[in-house]
Amino acid sequence: MPDPMRIEITAVAQVVAGHVDPVDDFQGGVESIIRLNEDFPLETLAGLEDFSHLEVVWHFHRANPADVALHARSPRNNPDWPATGTFAHRNHRRPNQLAVSHPKLVRVDGRDLHVTDLDAVIGTPVFDVLPYFPVMGPRGQVHVPTWVDEMLGRYWDTSDEKA
Amino acid sequence: MPDPMRIEITAVAQVVAGHVDPVDDFQGGVESIIRLNEDFPLETLAGLEDFSHLEVVWHFHRANPADVALHARSPRNNPDWPATGTFAHRNHRRPNQLAVSHPKLVRVDGRDLHVTDLDAVIGTPVFDVLPYFPVMGPRGQVHVPTWVDEMLGRYWDTSDEKA
Repeated sequence: MPDPMRIEITAVAQVVAGHVDPVDDFQGGVESIIRLNEDFPLETLAGLEDFSHLEVVWHFHRANPADVALHARSPRNNPDWPATGTFAHRNHRRPNQLAVSHPKLVRVDGRDLHVTDLDAVIGTPVFDVLPYFPVMGPRGQVHVPTWVDEMLGRYWDTSDEKA
Repeated sequence: MPDPMRIEITAVAQVVAGHVDPVDDFQGGVESIIRLNEDFPLETLAGLEDFSHLEVVWHFHRANPADVALHARSPRNNPDWPATGTFAHRNHRRPNQLAVSHPKLVRVDGRDLHVTDLDAVIGTPVFDVLPYFPVMGPRGQVHVPTWVDEMLGRYWDTSDEKA
């Protein structure tokens, strides 16, 4: 009897174009390609082009497993922001080192999904690709503590805005 | 050298209260509890209570691995809706049988996260719990094909609306 609390998952796709190295900010203005595993028939993507956005589950494969930190710390180690726990962050210091992103789907070309607003680097293994359904998104008023938007004010800026 | 395209993940939490059996609709009006693995110190949840919504990655553990279907079919087999591929759906027929939900966080009580709008049943292994950051949600205008909202018009209704 397999243990339901421990599973093995196999990448369904991989990021093959886009950001080269992980960065904290300036994720905008880059077109990335998520390439579907060639074992899957193309019809598994039928109709995906009618969605504006995807939900993508991926692995921080460039992170070190030793980076997992089961404690509370200030975001980006900035003492202006409160110490918050591993599960109050979205970074790679979490168990399993998974991430979820919501890129905009630009077009589907064969098994290549061209997207923008994907904060995963080239080589990233992708463990799920889903269409984004607003009806299954957060319901009602969404709020976050102030540090989130203070920290991420330049997250989607483009790199030529750095100067 | 481990294969980055194949990873083993361990549940960080489990659903211990809420829906008993999987249903297609009438997911609303139920409070669920996601209980953090007791191996993790409570400080890993510090500050999570300041977020209104979570993003939860879970496994369709009640589904049969043989349900994975690498083809296109009409949603809910309803011929009124177009045949669409495995990755244009969010159901359990996908490789890895993962799901992503966006429940509303009602309160944090020790290692119990009380939530509503969670469409995972009791016993579900949870492989990641993240705070929902609107800045990392879909950007710009979101659109979906018409079948999505036609199909899910009663998704969040409460079960006493069935009559």
